[in-house]
Amino acid sequence: MNDSFNSPLLDDAVRQLGRLPGIGRKTALRLALHILRQEPSMADELAGAITRLRHEMQYCRRCHNVSDSELCPICSSPSRDELTVCVVENVKDVLTVESTGQHRGLYHVLGGLISPIDGIGPADLEIDSLVERVKAEGVKEVILALSPTMEGDTTNFYIFRRLQELPVKVTMLARGLSVGSDLEFTDELTLGRSIQQRILFSSTFANA
Amino acid sequence: MNDSFNSPLLDDAVRQLGRLPGIGRKTALRLALHILRQEPSMADELAGAITRLRHEMQYCRRCHNVSDSELCPICSSPSRDELTVCVVENVKDVLTVESTGQHRGLYHVLGGLISPIDGIGPADLEIDSLVERVKAEGVKEVILALSPTMEGDTTNFYIFRRLQELPVKVTMLARGLSVGSDLEFTDELTLGRSIQQRILFSSTFANA
Repeated sequence: MNDSFNSPLLDDAVRQLGRLPGIGRKTALRLALHILRQEPSMADELAGAITRLRHEMQYCRRCHNVSDSELCPICSSPSRDELTVCVVENVKDVLTVESTGQHRGLYHVLGGLISPIDGIGPADLEIDSLVERVKAEGVKEVILALSPTMEGDTTNFYIFRRLQELPVKVTMLARGLSVGSDLEFTDELTLGRSIQQRILFSSTFANA
Repeated sequence: MNDSFNSPLLDDAVRQLGRLPGIGRKTALRLALHILRQEPSMADELAGAITRLRHEMQYCRRCHNVSDSELCPICSSPSRDELTVCVVENVKDVLTVESTGQHRGLYHVLGGLISPIDGIGPADLEIDSLVERVKAEGVKEVILALSPTMEGDTTNFYIFRRLQELPVKVTMLARGLSVGSDLEFTDELTLGRSIQQRILFSSTFANA
């Protein structure tokens, strides 16, 4: 494909759309041509939503989840257990954990994972604020709910080190077989962890 | 996933991004979270490019390709054959045909294909202007370069009917085997057309 569409306006739109993650040049062109075919109001609404999102979005001062008020609805709910804090990577993961209905505590959104390759260190994440929060609020349990990846494990370990002197229980999500999966197709690493961390059969009834 | 992110700003951004073709709710959320992590200037540039694209884009008055001037660079080029016009569905297809280097004439961008299911009729496309142009400019050949789909064939046939009384040769792209493909895996319809429309072996040298 040519580098230029004979139109700086189209070139610019394709370049800007192509900066979004997962959107290559061909997709960006398809989006731009779609926008050209719609009513002008559609372009205005889209552009307005993007600008407002970036400039007006606020974060909960306690858990750093997105919020339109100073304290997010979860943090200000009287029915949640304030002494159990689930640490997640991002806003999406709050929704994912919420959808399980298994966590009745609050959250703490890190805003990413430690990743030296991407130049993301502990100081770029909401880790200091987590340690402060654990101290100030007397949190009893921190549940690390990060992805089971290299970055997730590095971040888990770093947070554990920062919290280990404090009177707080630090737990992390169990690694094991996916419910409904086939033993034959489970990778050896996961299968190995699920043997190491095998659970008492009777305890599955206690947790239900 | 929940319907709401506890933030009307994020909800609105996800809804607007999700209106783009091929972008579902999950992808829209991923894009929105990406935008939130970037510098504010990135959101401004993206929003600005979208707004300018829709409001300031002009079209070549002759071929209806996107253009920042009244006449696009192809139409105003003295080295192109003005009497051969290649009819394409959209702006992307102009680039695709140009990339072959096999067409030295001009273009005519329809802006879509006839598709009763989508409510697109001949009057929604640049077909009247094509007929007018053929008459006014004394075009010698119209090459129909539309996709080999039901909509493309319908549009081909409609344009052919509109032009058949005029002194213009109407041609269409050959259907046949893809270069480099395997006969065994060619569908029967294409193989059948490639037998019906078989070409003299010697003519392949004449065209080279």
